[in-house]
Amino acid sequence: MAITVVGSVAFDSVSTPSGSYERQLAGAATYFSLAASYFTDVRVVAVVGEDFTAKEQAVFDARGIDTRGIEHASGKSFFWAGSYHDNLNEAKTLQTDLNVFGAFAPKIPEAYQDSQFLFLANIDPVLQKRVRDAMPQVKLVGGDTMNYWINDHRENLLKTLKGVDILLINDTETKLLAENKNPVKAAHDVLGLGPKALVVKHGEYGATAFFGSSIFAKDKHAKHHPFRAPALPLAEVVDPTGAGDSFAGGFFGYIASQPELTPSVFRRAMFYGGVMGSFAVERFGTERMQQLSREEIESRFALFRELTHLD
Amino acid sequence: MAITVVGSVAFDSVSTPSGSYERQLAGAATYFSLAASYFTDVRVVAVVGEDFTAKEQAVFDARGIDTRGIEHASGKSFFWAGSYHDNLNEAKTLQTDLNVFGAFAPKIPEAYQDSQFLFLANIDPVLQKRVRDAMPQVKLVGGDTMNYWINDHRENLLKTLKGVDILLINDTETKLLAENKNPVKAAHDVLGLGPKALVVKHGEYGATAFFGSSIFAKDKHAKHHPFRAPALPLAEVVDPTGAGDSFAGGFFGYIASQPELTPSVFRRAMFYGGVMGSFAVERFGTERMQQLSREEIESRFALFRELTHLD
Repeated sequence: MAITVVGSVAFDSVSTPSGSYERQLAGAATYFSLAASYFTDVRVVAVVGEDFTAKEQAVFDARGIDTRGIEHASGKSFFWAGSYHDNLNEAKTLQTDLNVFGAFAPKIPEAYQDSQFLFLANIDPVLQKRVRDAMPQVKLVGGDTMNYWINDHRENLLKTLKGVDILLINDTETKLLAENKNPVKAAHDVLGLGPKALVVKHGEYGATAFFGSSIFAKDKHAKHHPFRAPALPLAEVVDPTGAGDSFAGGFFGYIASQPELTPSVFRRAMFYGGVMGSFAVERFGTERMQQLSREEIESRFALFRELTHLD
Repeated sequence: MAITVVGSVAFDSVSTPSGSYERQLAGAATYFSLAASYFTDVRVVAVVGEDFTAKEQAVFDARGIDTRGIEHASGKSFFWAGSYHDNLNEAKTLQTDLNVFGAFAPKIPEAYQDSQFLFLANIDPVLQKRVRDAMPQVKLVGGDTMNYWINDHRENLLKTLKGVDILLINDTETKLLAENKNPVKAAHDVLGLGPKALVVKHGEYGATAFFGSSIFAKDKHAKHHPFRAPALPLAEVVDPTGAGDSFAGGFFGYIASQPELTPSVFRRAMFYGGVMGSFAVERFGTERMQQLSREEIESRFALFRELTHLD
């Protein structure tokens, strides 16, 4: 079943201890849709500038991603420059140019309206809510956000969260959103803001899901324990950019590929999220996300299982 | 099969966000032996002062722990005072009085000499090595250490590590010992220093084991992938003191209770370590470690499995 994703399609200049690159295709919606494309049909809503050429279009086309919702505007695409040093979990932002993204008014093609899944990548919560409201028929909404929106646009974000079923954020964002430093209490506080499930990403340590009582069609009132999925211990992280978005793409893509959201599907989706995140960081930019095979994905899924399972 | 453990039997004064206590029975060897006592026979080598009374002795007796190797010296027992604030992973040391521990010369009772397992809790690596050398018949040696010994007694520690089969330390200690900031490369560097297996503890995120090629009797030359065990997401950590030692006790106690060390036993041991660590922090000091039942332990083991397993 198809996923519509709204978010940034951008260009990044990145420097890491392993090397650097200049103005390459990037952005949350790009990483998300490439990762999800290995599992299901993906449709993108975004805006790009004149620097988005046939070369970038070909990346989406090669993965069969529907780009009719990518608006082409005059000017330049969203641009981000950042660097990573010893702590690869933390990027230092050197430059952010909104460019055409500054006036982004998401337009959803009619052909996207039968999407059953919607992912709101990390953008202004006002835009997230507008897209969510414009697609009332979707049956499951995933979302992401970041410190900036939590700190400076909290009221707007809280409105958006009421329409998000599964929120995927990291430890720091969870504590900041809940205004609670205890990670478990913070998670439960966030579940009180609207989301029925919260996936807290721990970087190199994996991710933990916390559940409210109504995300699963069956056992609506059962209490579901948290679930922890691992990250792969990697001797070399070439480029952490896009790891979180690739996690979200693998996670949501797998869910969309299954007939029903059950606890077992949710758990497997967490594993596939970790798998896609682990691939993303092996090469610079979106390189690895462009050229995976389903066999490689299944083989790494098996490795994740071996990494955590007793027998 | 019996474990001999050498380490501190001490008194702690601790303050946490949940409360505080004054001069209560504590110390690495105490937490370790209480945790391990639910799995196998435990024998302690330590030194205490005159403040160690029948009340403290009764705690060991109630768990059937052999204390013939605890020397009673004139003066006071080792004393530590510390406090925890928002970051419960990090204690602030307020006072350390070595007292009788300053002149500790471990004496191993003859009756301990048939122990097949030895655990070197966190003490001066010179003493660790002396005990290890005095028990040449043991078939498996576990050990712990800390930043102070790594930084200021490195040469002595490196000699001790050559006689340790399984080292249990945390992320920071691993990087410090390896002088390498990449967690995976650091783990492999530590395996080059002597230990055949390294268990890296991640606090609230659990622990990861890395393997050399010769810890298991069978498949001596097989390559073993890392294994990750979870920690329980806890809404309230009453007192983090002793969590690592209780992890080590559950881990090593379970291994000693099994006929052979296999990859499957090692994995289960990591889970039991996490289980005992999760109990330890639920109450102040050693309170919870004194009064567990095997049923509670098995029930939490099942919860740890549910927390991580796909099906």
